[in-house]
Formats: sequence, C-alpha cells, structure tokens
Amino acid sequence: MRAAAAAGREVFGYNRSIEAVSAATADGFDATENLDEALTRAADRNALVVLAVPVPALSLMLSRIRDLAPGCPLTDVTSVKSCVLDEVRNVGLLDRFVGGHPMTGTAQSGWTAGDVKLFDGAPWVVGVDDHVDPTIWTMVMNLALDCGAVVVPARSDEHDAAAATISHLPHLLAEALATTAGEVPLAFALAAGSFRDGTRVAATAPDLVRAMCEANADQLLPALDRTLGLLNQARGALAAKKPLTELVEAGHAARVRYDSFGRPEIVTVVIGEDRWREELAAEGRAGGVIRSALPGLDSRG
Amino acid sequence: MRAAAAAGREVFGYNRSIEAVSAATADGFDATENLDEALTRAADRNALVVLAVPVPALSLMLSRIRDLAPGCPLTDVTSVKSCVLDEVRNVGLLDRFVGGHPMTGTAQSGWTAGDVKLFDGAPWVVGVDDHVDPTIWTMVMNLALDCGAVVVPARSDEHDAAAATISHLPHLLAEALATTAGEVPLAFALAAGSFRDGTRVAATAPDLVRAMCEANADQLLPALDRTLGLLNQARGALAAKKPLTELVEAGHAARVRYDSFGRPEIVTVVIGEDRWREELAAEGRAGGVIRSALPGLDSRG
Repeated sequence: MRAAAAAGREVFGYNRSIEAVSAATADGFDATENLDEALTRAADRNALVVLAVPVPALSLMLSRIRDLAPGCPLTDVTSVKSCVLDEVRNVGLLDRFVGGHPMTGTAQSGWTAGDVKLFDGAPWVVGVDDHVDPTIWTMVMNLALDCGAVVVPARSDEHDAAAATISHLPHLLAEALATTAGEVPLAFALAAGSFRDGTRVAATAPDLVRAMCEANADQLLPALDRTLGLLNQARGALAAKKPLTELVEAGHAARVRYDSFGRPEIVTVVIGEDRWREELAAEGRAGGVIRSALPGLDSRG
Repeated sequence: MRAAAAAGREVFGYNRSIEAVSAATADGFDATENLDEALTRAADRNALVVLAVPVPALSLMLSRIRDLAPGCPLTDVTSVKSCVLDEVRNVGLLDRFVGGHPMTGTAQSGWTAGDVKLFDGAPWVVGVDDHVDPTIWTMVMNLALDCGAVVVPARSDEHDAAAATISHLPHLLAEALATTAGEVPLAFALAAGSFRDGTRVAATAPDLVRAMCEANADQLLPALDRTLGLLNQARGALAAKKPLTELVEAGHAARVRYDSFGRPEIVTVVIGEDRWREELAAEGRAGGVIRSALPGLDSRG
C-alpha cells in the first residue's frame, strides 16, 4: 500500500487484523477489516486485486474473490508459485490471474514491518505461465515498476525450482551445518567467517523456514537429492583418500559463473505478440530484467 | 617475521625461494636461502624455530632440524595439527615441540602477501597435547601474544575435529550448493543473500580447498557423515510430507547458541602446575582465550 500510494496510485486494503487496519488508517491509508466491503468496492472499480496471504489462507480468500469480485484482475505475492496457480485454477479464476513474487521482505510481519522503500531495486517475479493475459500481465508489471522493483519474468514451475536451490536448500544446509558444529567441542571457539556465512540463515525463525521449505517440497526434494549426491561422492573420495577435485572444481566454476552473471535489461519484447510469454521466460532465465514498462500491441507505432 | 620484529624480537629466517629472501632482505629483514646456515645459527642461540611449510614439506624439514638443531624449541603454523604431531614424533623431536595454528591469512602466499598486522586479534591455537613442556609452551604463547594474537589452548585432535566442522565442511557444502544451483535454469537470476552467503567460500582457489580438506580427511569424514545424516533425515520428512521441525529447530538453536558464545579471558591457570594442560584445554573448549601471558611455576610469588 505504501509503495503503490507513493507512486500516485489509488489504493485501498483489507486485513483481518483490527490492529493492522487501525495502524494503516492512522497513517492515512484507506483500509478496512470488512472483506465483503473491500471486494465489492474492488469489483465496482475493476481494481487490480493483490492477494498477500500465507498459503493456508489462499483457498478461503480465493473463494470470496470468486463470489464478490470474479471479474477483477488478480495477482499475488506468495513466495511459492505453482501451488498458488493450482488453487487459482481450482476456484476458476485462472483467466484473470498473473502470479507475482517480490523477492524482498523482513523477518517481521504486520503493518509496522512495512516500508515504502521495501521494493526499491528488488527483483519482482511476474509469472509468464501459458495462460496469462497480456493486459493483466501489463497491469502487474506496471504495479511492480511503480513500487520501484525490477521485473523478472518467469514461469511458476521454474520459479519454484530456482527458489528451491537458491533459498530453501541453503536454509537446510545452514541448519545441518550449525547442528553439526554445535555438537563438536571447541567448534564455536574456533568458528570464523566460513562458519558464520554458512550458518547465517539458520538464525531465521524456524516457523518461517519450515513454511518456505515444506510448501515447496516437490521442488526442494530434487535439489536436495542433487546436493546429497554430490556430497556422497565427495564422502567416497575422502574415505578412499582420493582427491576431491570433482566437487571442488565444479563448485568453484559455478560460483565464478555466478559472480559474472549479468542483469541485462529486457527491451525488445512486445507484450501480446506471438510467443511473448516464451520470449520473456527465456530472457528472465538468462538474467534479464524489465526496468521500464515494455510496450504492448496497442502501444506500438 | 614482520610481527615478531615489530614486537622487538630478534628474528631471522630461511626460505627456499630466492625471490622471497631478496624481498625480505630488501625490506631490512635477516633472511637466507641457506637452510644449514639458518639452522646452525638457531642451534647456537637456542632460538625458537617456527616451522611454516606446507604438509608435504614437513618430513624433509623436520629431518634437517633433527640433524642440525635438535635441541631448539620448535613450533609450527600448519592448519592441521594431528598429522604434524605424528611427523614430529616420527623424527624424534616431540619433547621440544608445541604445535600452533594462527587462524588468519590471505588467499595469497609469498613474502609480499604478509602484513605486520596479520595476527592482530586473531585466535592463535597453541597445542596442549599430553607431551608438551611448560617452558616451551610459554615461549610459543609469548610469541603469539607478541604478534598481537589471542591464544586459544587446544589439543591437536580437538583442533582438527573443530576445524573440520567450522571450516572444511562449510567449504564442501558451499561447493555442492553452487554446483546444484548452477544446473538449474533461472537460479542465478533469482539468487540473493542466502545463496551468496552460502556459496561465498566456493570462490576460494580449488587447490587450497582440496589441500585443507584432504589433509584433514580423518576428521572431516565424521563431520560430513553427521551432516549427511541430518540432511537425509530432512529428505525423508520432505518426501513423506512431514514437518522439518527436527532439523530446523536444532539448527536454529545451535546458531543462536553460537551468537551468544562468549570469549572469556583465561586468567587462573598456572603453566606447569598439576593438570595445567587439561585445564587449559577445558577453558579453550569453553571459548576461553589468553590475552596476556599466564604465569608459570617460576614466576609465582
């Protein structure tokens, strides 16, 4: 709300918490704890609905949206994307839906945890799944850009597979490393940079870590299996007094490749033209980001 | 040499590299590429010999020391300790030996990579193995303190087990994480803090990583097995759609414990008194460090 309002957008919100609504209202925002009122108003104005609830609350909220504002364009900010797509499909709102995931946040929640600058420069994933409508995609892209984010176009399944390896897997490794070291006398006494960096995310609240990892279990499992395979191979080499060349060279090469991974701006795609979704997915995969609004078919010369 | 000289110590050195000796000499230090000359001089003055060579060079150097300076007190700065102890025992110099490991350094090597401030505030592990002589232990402690380090007393086997979990294991996990993510389209495009921190040490030169891990294989193996066990357990939970509570809670608790791990100063142990080695090992294990010289039996009231 803060970021969209700062960009000059008309924005109104619903939250089930009286405290959150009071705090937002006290800060001058238009908020209500009456869901029916908020959705009826959204339907009247054909507003873009931004769903920002935890996965377990999705189903209930979606059925209310279907009943009261089925024609509104719809997006979300959930950190897993395939399961949201399934829920939206189940409730019959797929035609109006484009998924999103702003990759930013804090360990806190509630109104006071927000910040108008929260999205500045952050990657905001916007789904380019097969079904998405060019007009609604453009609306969601513009919301993300207005909030100060850069847009990374991605398919939901690819987003979830990537998130599993770059976010959920690191959490599991950090937990295992911290646990292992915690059982060795003298380990904490000698711990320095390698251990501190390798376990930093183990300080995250356990409930948050579990929620992320468990909701993305289908994608996390193959990533974890690949890492277990690599580590088991290294274990075999160590036990046989053989060199660790394979793992160490591969890991180093990957990290070096990451360090030189660019963020080219996506500029040539026209939203709505033939194969625009596939093109955007390919550019996003290669590191591309949208920094200013792409044209649509209507806006061409 | 730089740090010891800055503390007002007389210091002379040997290196097999003409370039290193020339560079040190040009900087005003007393250095030679003639090993026999350096060791004969050390024997004449009963100098403390500081052995700073890679593990594969230990055996040759130790046999020369045995031939030319067998009576000199002897220490080392090797990053693994049990294998050094074995080599020293094999060559018959155990009585005069106290192992050391200053836990600092750079990714570079050679004379120009050094820095008089390199040891400032760094933990310098000094071995309290069963055999160590109080007088030589005091000499090594004083060298470390003169160089600006804090002394962590530790047994060689405990040092190696701790180093395996807080340094070598994090390297293997970082290599595996970087490799796994490098194989997933879109992963680098979405990578942020968790991935960056979790793979930072994968940027280390592969030869250095291999040398560290392979030289400490005996201790790294059980640490890796423990981590593999924890991750396999988590894998089972994920596959069965069960909660990850066990790993996540344990990792979080360990990391929180690490964050509040203190560094109390060791002040009450008298070097040479009954069970002084066991007491120092216990205090080191609990996080204790020596910041100013502990008294010996001679120096008491």
